[in-house]
Amino acid sequence: MDIHDLTRSLHEKNDSKTVMLVADGLGGLPMQPGGKTELETARTPNLDALAVQGVQGGSIPVLPGISPGSGPGHLGLFGYDPLKYVIGRGALEATGIGFELQKNDVAVRGNYCTLDKNGNISDRRAGRIATEESAPLAVKLRDVKIPGVQVFVEPVKEHRFVVVFRGEGLGDQVDDTDPQRTGVPPLAPHGRDAASQRTAQVAAQFIEQAGRLLADQTKANGLTLRGFAAKPALPTYEEVYGLRAAAIAVYPMYKGLARLVGMNILGKPTTLDDEVSLLEQHWNDYDFFFLHFKYTDSTGEDGNFDAKVKKIEEFDAAIPRVVKLKPTVLIVTGDHSTPSFLRSHSWHPVPTLLVSDCCRPDACQHYSESDSVRGGLGQFEAKYLMTLALANARRLGKYGA
Amino acid sequence: MDIHDLTRSLHEKNDSKTVMLVADGLGGLPMQPGGKTELETARTPNLDALAVQGVQGGSIPVLPGISPGSGPGHLGLFGYDPLKYVIGRGALEATGIGFELQKNDVAVRGNYCTLDKNGNISDRRAGRIATEESAPLAVKLRDVKIPGVQVFVEPVKEHRFVVVFRGEGLGDQVDDTDPQRTGVPPLAPHGRDAASQRTAQVAAQFIEQAGRLLADQTKANGLTLRGFAAKPALPTYEEVYGLRAAAIAVYPMYKGLARLVGMNILGKPTTLDDEVSLLEQHWNDYDFFFLHFKYTDSTGEDGNFDAKVKKIEEFDAAIPRVVKLKPTVLIVTGDHSTPSFLRSHSWHPVPTLLVSDCCRPDACQHYSESDSVRGGLGQFEAKYLMTLALANARRLGKYGA
Repeated sequence: MDIHDLTRSLHEKNDSKTVMLVADGLGGLPMQPGGKTELETARTPNLDALAVQGVQGGSIPVLPGISPGSGPGHLGLFGYDPLKYVIGRGALEATGIGFELQKNDVAVRGNYCTLDKNGNISDRRAGRIATEESAPLAVKLRDVKIPGVQVFVEPVKEHRFVVVFRGEGLGDQVDDTDPQRTGVPPLAPHGRDAASQRTAQVAAQFIEQAGRLLADQTKANGLTLRGFAAKPALPTYEEVYGLRAAAIAVYPMYKGLARLVGMNILGKPTTLDDEVSLLEQHWNDYDFFFLHFKYTDSTGEDGNFDAKVKKIEEFDAAIPRVVKLKPTVLIVTGDHSTPSFLRSHSWHPVPTLLVSDCCRPDACQHYSESDSVRGGLGQFEAKYLMTLALANARRLGKYGA
Repeated sequence: MDIHDLTRSLHEKNDSKTVMLVADGLGGLPMQPGGKTELETARTPNLDALAVQGVQGGSIPVLPGISPGSGPGHLGLFGYDPLKYVIGRGALEATGIGFELQKNDVAVRGNYCTLDKNGNISDRRAGRIATEESAPLAVKLRDVKIPGVQVFVEPVKEHRFVVVFRGEGLGDQVDDTDPQRTGVPPLAPHGRDAASQRTAQVAAQFIEQAGRLLADQTKANGLTLRGFAAKPALPTYEEVYGLRAAAIAVYPMYKGLARLVGMNILGKPTTLDDEVSLLEQHWNDYDFFFLHFKYTDSTGEDGNFDAKVKKIEEFDAAIPRVVKLKPTVLIVTGDHSTPSFLRSHSWHPVPTLLVSDCCRPDACQHYSESDSVRGGLGQFEAKYLMTLALANARRLGKYGA
């Protein structure tokens, strides 16, 4: 039995409000033996006050030792088993820029690249071309015409774009054309089954026509395609939890993930302050709010320990406005750890805090990796966070007589 | 691989004795922030002495956030995955009153109700009619005759009874006839497949004849049927663990659950003292004893914190007599939490204590929710308690060469 089979049959409605604050890549590591993590170094009086009131634990994003990407990391937090539900990168990227995927779509991430006179890649990211330069290229590529297939091209940031092929019988098991190195030409698209071979043929036509349309470019005169993916079939928050859910995020990726599970995307915030303002404005309209804070991850990926500490303190400073709304259940967590020491996503359990009137508080005095080890939630797979959220919101009935 | 596939092939026999003491709904919550739980408030010198000797942890009844009924709660403690084994309410109730279900039986919970002159329900519980009044009605209903089907009617407490239909090809996928509200007539029985439609027809005949037999009653002149259920197919303790097991319980429900996994039911105790006396008397006859204490749950459901504290102290006072028997493995646990604060079963992990000569004691000094968080057993799904029990009793061989 799947966890959603349980929540589907047990969920109940009430007036509770749940807020899940996700500081991306929150968990960390000390930079040297005996040191403290970023979260332990940061001054976080507001999070520490919540730690005293609430219950803490370590959220394991997927399984012990498994470092997730943003997709599996968030699916876990949303209660979707990240080993059962797999979202292709193209589908994620398309959804993230507001492209609403349909049943017959295959979405693909495109990268502009620089090709030398022999057709070999000299720069896999076209000199990290500025968004202002690359955006018009996507418009140009809309001139590609392929019989029987609709083609949508959308700009993303810098050297990135999304292409969506819409047509009957297109498979998404197509290998990436990015050879992952320079000095060689892009790979030809290759489909791993009959339907995907058809998609590969469509992609080959796209690449050929696009090559002609980009021929006059100096930096972005070629392209590679990655992450071919159909729209994933995810049940919605409304269906599995009975929750009207809203997402507040600055970056497309996290909006896209939230949209795939049926959350409504609120506004176009550019700062954490904007995000909290949206939370306040829409407080009466939803039962559940997912609020995403990106910069704990990006500073960690940069290996910038001090910058990550500062971002955690910025995150802490936003807490009082959230607390003032008096959520029934307030959760603070991350989708995974991004220790500055590793400069990458990692597998380490993420300190996770849950505050409600029936959370059974533990003895933790701080919100931190060390405290989370001694917390009342123990260590748990992230996919169980939503059942805990629903239970604390008293939105789950009893299982069995 | 199921946990029972392991225990089936690994279990060994010896002279060990294991006692599992289950204080129903034991786990709790503080009534106000910063307060103590019921168990932390109670004076429990005997349980605390065991906590010093033993190892403690938090048992998760089903999965994080899932509050179980008594059935799933006990199945978990008995080592039967409560998501794999589901016992219908009718089967549970029938077994609980000593009715030994057979293969061709469908058991159903009946409620007497009061019908007004238009046939609408005016009281769903027939004024909570006294057991002395309702018991003779069950005898009356035994006059119902249905061709090809044997009908058994047994009284339960107050407005409740059990009816068992015995016959070839009866399905148990029949919807409840209780409309869950007054002012409307009972629903007609409806079967969800061909075999269950046959049962629905049998049930309809039962209802019709019963209506005539009850026509002269003022309060209990009607009935509703709920929880249609065939006998669940549970492997026995003997088969999966190699244990001769006995159950000691005051209430029918827990005797019934124990009987379904092949335990022998000992005596007819009415007090905890009686229960421990039965344990003493039968000490040489069994390898495993399940002893159930009800009142920690019922006081919690009443929201009576002080009464639950007293019941925990009463439970504690019985411990020395059990310890005196020198069980090889002594387990103290609950099937779920029933915090007075919530007045209901809850999802919170249950403090669980295991004492044996090889349990690897932890640093816990008290038996409590707070201590269990720091205990050597960590947090674990209840379904693993029996493998821990067998291991500590040195009744499990090595897995693999």
